[in-house]
Order: sequence, then structure tokens, then C-alpha cells
Amino acid sequence: MTDRTDEPLLLTPGPLTTSRTTKEVMLRDWGSRDGEFIAMNARVRDHLVELAGGAETHTAILLQGAGTFAVEAMIGTLVPRQGKLLILINGAYGRRMAQLSKVIGRTYVTLETPEDTPPDPAAVAAVLAADPAVTHVAMVYCETTSGLLNPLAEVAVVVAAAGRRLLIDAMSAFGALPCDAREIRYDALVSSFNKCLEGVPGAAFVICRRAALEAAAGNAHSVVLDLHDQWVFMERAGQWRFTAPTHVIAAFDRALAEHAAEGGIAGRGARYRRNCQVLIAGMRAMGFRTLLPDALQAPIIVTFHIPSDPRFAFEEFYDRLRRRGYVIYPGKVTAADTFRIGCIGRLSEADMRGALTAIRGVLDEMGVRVPVAAVAASSL
Amino acid sequence: MTDRTDEPLLLTPGPLTTSRTTKEVMLRDWGSRDGEFIAMNARVRDHLVELAGGAETHTAILLQGAGTFAVEAMIGTLVPRQGKLLILINGAYGRRMAQLSKVIGRTYVTLETPEDTPPDPAAVAAVLAADPAVTHVAMVYCETTSGLLNPLAEVAVVVAAAGRRLLIDAMSAFGALPCDAREIRYDALVSSFNKCLEGVPGAAFVICRRAALEAAAGNAHSVVLDLHDQWVFMERAGQWRFTAPTHVIAAFDRALAEHAAEGGIAGRGARYRRNCQVLIAGMRAMGFRTLLPDALQAPIIVTFHIPSDPRFAFEEFYDRLRRRGYVIYPGKVTAADTFRIGCIGRLSEADMRGALTAIRGVLDEMGVRVPVAAVAASSL
Repeated sequence: MTDRTDEPLLLTPGPLTTSRTTKEVMLRDWGSRDGEFIAMNARVRDHLVELAGGAETHTAILLQGAGTFAVEAMIGTLVPRQGKLLILINGAYGRRMAQLSKVIGRTYVTLETPEDTPPDPAAVAAVLAADPAVTHVAMVYCETTSGLLNPLAEVAVVVAAAGRRLLIDAMSAFGALPCDAREIRYDALVSSFNKCLEGVPGAAFVICRRAALEAAAGNAHSVVLDLHDQWVFMERAGQWRFTAPTHVIAAFDRALAEHAAEGGIAGRGARYRRNCQVLIAGMRAMGFRTLLPDALQAPIIVTFHIPSDPRFAFEEFYDRLRRRGYVIYPGKVTAADTFRIGCIGRLSEADMRGALTAIRGVLDEMGVRVPVAAVAASSL
Repeated sequence: MTDRTDEPLLLTPGPLTTSRTTKEVMLRDWGSRDGEFIAMNARVRDHLVELAGGAETHTAILLQGAGTFAVEAMIGTLVPRQGKLLILINGAYGRRMAQLSKVIGRTYVTLETPEDTPPDPAAVAAVLAADPAVTHVAMVYCETTSGLLNPLAEVAVVVAAAGRRLLIDAMSAFGALPCDAREIRYDALVSSFNKCLEGVPGAAFVICRRAALEAAAGNAHSVVLDLHDQWVFMERAGQWRFTAPTHVIAAFDRALAEHAAEGGIAGRGARYRRNCQVLIAGMRAMGFRTLLPDALQAPIIVTFHIPSDPRFAFEEFYDRLRRRGYVIYPGKVTAADTFRIGCIGRLSEADMRGALTAIRGVLDEMGVRVPVAAVAASSL
């Protein structure tokens, strides 16, 4: 996994580092009516449904654009104009679903917890019991704002028991963490080509219960974001409704094959967990503190507190690491000064150790001292 | 331009054939906060504004997704909810603007002419005089349904004289046909990375009058399609508001450099005109008839009538040409049985002659006889 020479490793929530072989398939052009391309679309869709455990119940809809395009499309298509959405919020991506719902004119209420606190499934049950108008519940599986893993399975049980429908933003989770539709009841789940499945950015997808989609004709607030019409067209023609990002799709087809070769969700998740363990252990050994306790930490991206030493300036830290070949990410939580380091993409344990060595070197260059507190070893 | 071996040439309206060098820049990954990537975005935007002759007045907004995403974004952002749109229609892309307006809740009227007939600027003037509620006029520059070139400059004069604002779908024209904002008054113009500028598909752009954009805050029906917010964010951060299709953008940056090296709009347009002349002359010599008279034909894509010989079956014709390395396109006009051959993308006169030879061979294989009528030579 060290097949890059002139480019840095991306330890970010995306765009992230992809394999050379994934990128190489972009060296040709495909016609959108071409049999080979049509077969590729079908293969990608079948693979996604298989990963979601949804062969009996769900379908996969591919959508041009960034992941947020698919989140807006999911809410706009699946929540009827007379529906009402309960949005669980503990970070920027939960807040974004509220913003999307407001702009596109869907009624919603929120249940918000602090950015380091998962929602309590009992509290969700209480809101649903008290507000029979709520038809759908939306939640983020892994909140990359903090790196927190939300209790998807537990919330899904509560939502199903109350007879409501669940919509999941699984952007940075799908492909590495379990979201099996046979175990977790949901109507729709969104993710992107360029997160744990390690394609290149440019498109996203929605795994959607077919019955819910069939009932959603005419709901959407937009033509291009209408998942029902996108689905009907692709089912009929095997092609995309509007010009397909052919190179991005071909790269994703290859990335899915590499995901399978790595052992699918279990294999990919195991590598990310090792990356995360190595990262957290190494950072703690240098004195850094994680925002989250290990029990809430998803193996996707880790938020660290900015050291108290005034010689630590994030932009300088970022630039110096960049020059050593590692790109990290600024913090996003509102309540603390932090930065983030991602564990996903084409990164190995050796890459994480390389990043740790670079961080050690940069701290020394900057003269930053991080007092090592007595912290527990990672138990992830 | 014959650097492909195992892939066909795409004689289509897109996705189309791009240069090897354009695709090769996709062999690396970029972080979205990276200085190099931020500089690339700025360079691309400046280049587009320059091509549009809009340095004094306009800005370029990049948007994830297919071209239609940008058309919907243009209408949704720039036509206020109390506005009214006049849409000039003579093909599928004009009709699509009406469909978009209807779904997103913008009031509109249409002025429709047959698919082989451009709108009469005097008729546009009459509608505007009779309906003072109309605030905006939308038109398609080159209707790829037929290949017809609409009278953009003439309509623009009429719209400006009536004090209304012009929105242009220049999808398959920008980069090869003139759309200079100093000569043609418009508020916004949409095109795609993957048409005459010969990038790969996956994103589009809107050239927009800055004053119109500043007045458009809060208009949009969608978060992801809000051009005002996309613009404000990119101006402030130099980054895309939602995950950028980094590889697609890098390829476009390279494609723009190759466009400049070819002589910009004049050079690119001249190559396409030669391609078109060679194609039409060669097809007429084999007895094919074009849908349009030469005076209405844009040098982008040409619609031919299906030969009357019953041995001509389009799907077989398509498949046989495909096996010889040339991908063509089905017809789209409603009033006649036709097929289309594109002149755009990384295609040379020699490629067009190769396509003609292949067509001759396929007709002979199929036993199709096309009687050569006494047709005038192309005067394009």
C-alpha cells in the first residue's frame, strides 16, 4: 500500500487515498449505452445490495454528486410532503439533515445530544410515543464530526417497534461497519463511492427498501434528486438517467472487487480497526488525548484535543505534516479545540506508524511538548 | 488522436472521447484542503470566466453531478419564487427545462417550435411585450436532440431590449461556439466538463452574472443545488461546499489547458466544423440525408434519417459499428426515424473518415442500399 511516490497519504474523512489499480481503470472512456458499461452498472448495484444484506427487500440507486446530494435525495424522495421527520443530532451531519429538511420543506423535529454523546434509544422511543405525527426517523451512523459511533441497531429496534421508518446516513460507515438489512430494519441508507468502499469521489448511492421507493413516486422536490425516477430509469434502461460519471463508476466497480478480495465488510473493518488502534495508542504515547472514550470511538476518524502548549499551531502542524507526506484534517466539533486523523482509505498499519513518526518529528521541529498523562491504553 | 487501442471512439453527445493525457492526471489522489487542489479550483474558474468573456461581470460556479443538475440549479437559484420564466422549446432539452421548472415550483410559459425550427426572435419579443410578468427567458443554444443551432445572439438582443434576463443551456456549445458575455447579454449559462471542453463527466458549471447571484440568496429549492451558497463557500474557502470530485476536476484542469493549446474556442470550433463537414459530405455521398438544412446545423452532432431500405435495423447497425470501434447514438427527435453521429470530443478528421469507412463496410455487410439522391454539398 505504498504505491504512491509524489503524493501525500490522505488521513482524512475524504476525499481519501485510493489504490493505484482503482485509479488505473479511469484511463479509458466508456459510452453510456455500451453493453460493457451497462453490465458494470448492474454489477455495482448488485454488489451494493449484497453488502447491505438487502437482496430480498432492497435495491441500490446510484446518484451523481457528493454524498450530501444523496442525503437530500433520500429525504426529499422518501419523506412525503405530509410526513414528519425526527432527526437525531450530535454533530454537523445530523444538523445538515435538519438544514436540508428545512430548505426542501419537510416538517421535522430534532433530538439533540452533545457532540460526544450518543442518543438514548429510550429517549427516541419517548419522542415517538409522544408525537404520533412523526413518520420517519433519520440518524447518522458514524458522526465524522467527532468520530462517534451512534447506536444504530438499538435505535432501529425502537423505531421499528413504534412502526416508524428509519433513514440512515451511513456515509463514513458502510463497507466497514455492519448495516445488514436483515438485522437492522431501515427504509434507506446513504453512502458514498469514496468512503469505506475506497472508490474515487463523484457519486453516491442509496440502499432503499423497494416497497418504500414504489410508494414514493412524485414526492421529490427536485428532478435530478428524485430517487424514484432515477431507479425506474435505471431498472428499465440499465443506464443512468442523466450523464453518468463513467470513469468514477468504473473505478468504483474495481474498488468493490478489491473490497471483496479484502474479505468484504469484515476484512475492511478489521484493517480500519487496526489502523485506529495503532493511531490512538501511538498518539496517546506522545501525550495526545482523544475527544471520545474508546467505547464510543468508531474506527473511521479520531478527534484529538489540540495540545495546550502555545507553540502548537494547527496550520503549521498541518503544513509540516503535509510536507512529510501526510494530510490530516481540522477539527469540527464546536465545544473544543481539536484536530482529526482518519483511519480509512488505502492505508495500512505501516502507513499509520509512518504518520506517527512524522508527527513525532514535526512536534520536535516545532518545539511542542505534550505532557504524557496517565492514560489507559486503547481498548478498541 | 489515435492513442486508443482497446476502446471505441465515441461519436456521441457525451460521455465522449477524451485525450489520454487528460485521463492520466486522474492517477493520483488530492486532499480537498490541499494548496495544490485549491489553486486548481481557482485556475479552472478563472479559465472558464475568461472563455465566457465575463471577467468584468461574471463568475464561474462549479457543481457536482451531470449537466442537468446545473440546469436545475440555475433555474432554482436565479428565478425567484415570484418570478416567471419563458422557455423556448424545440427539442428534449428545452422540454426538460419546463419539466424542471414545474417540479421545483417555478411559474413558466413556453414558446414551442418544431424540432427542426428555431424560435423567431420577433415572436419572443411579442410574448415578452404581451406578458410583463415574465422575468427570465431560458433557451438551449445547441439542441442536441436534433443538432440545431438556435439564434442565441438574436434572442439575447430581444430579451435585453425588453429588460428581461436570459438563462442559457449551452451544454453542448460552450468551448466551441461563441458565448461571449461582452457581446451576448445573459445572466447565466450552463455547460458541462464533458462536452466541448473535453473533460471527463462528473461535474458541470454555471457562468453567472455576479450581481444576479448576489440577489439570489435564499431563492433555491435545494441545499445541494443552491448556486449562491456554492459560490459564497468557494469564494471564501477556495474549496467545494460538499466533497469535490477531485479526479474529475484535475482532468478538467488538464482538458482546459489542452483547449487553450488548440487555440481556445476558435481552434476547438474549427476542428469540430471540419469534423462535421467531413461527416456530412461522406454520409451524403453514401446517400444519407441530414434532418437539418446546413444553415441550421451546429457542428456538434448531426441527425441523419434512417434509410428506407428495410434491411437497415438501427440496433444491428450500431452493434456492427461498435465492433469496428465506433460508437454512434440513437435519434431523439420525435417526428422522424433518425440516428445521430457526434463531431465532438477528441476526434480528428481522420477519425471521421475512419468512421465513414466503417459505415460503408457495415452497410455492405448488412446488404443495405441507400439510393444517392442529388443532394447539394455541405456548405457548412
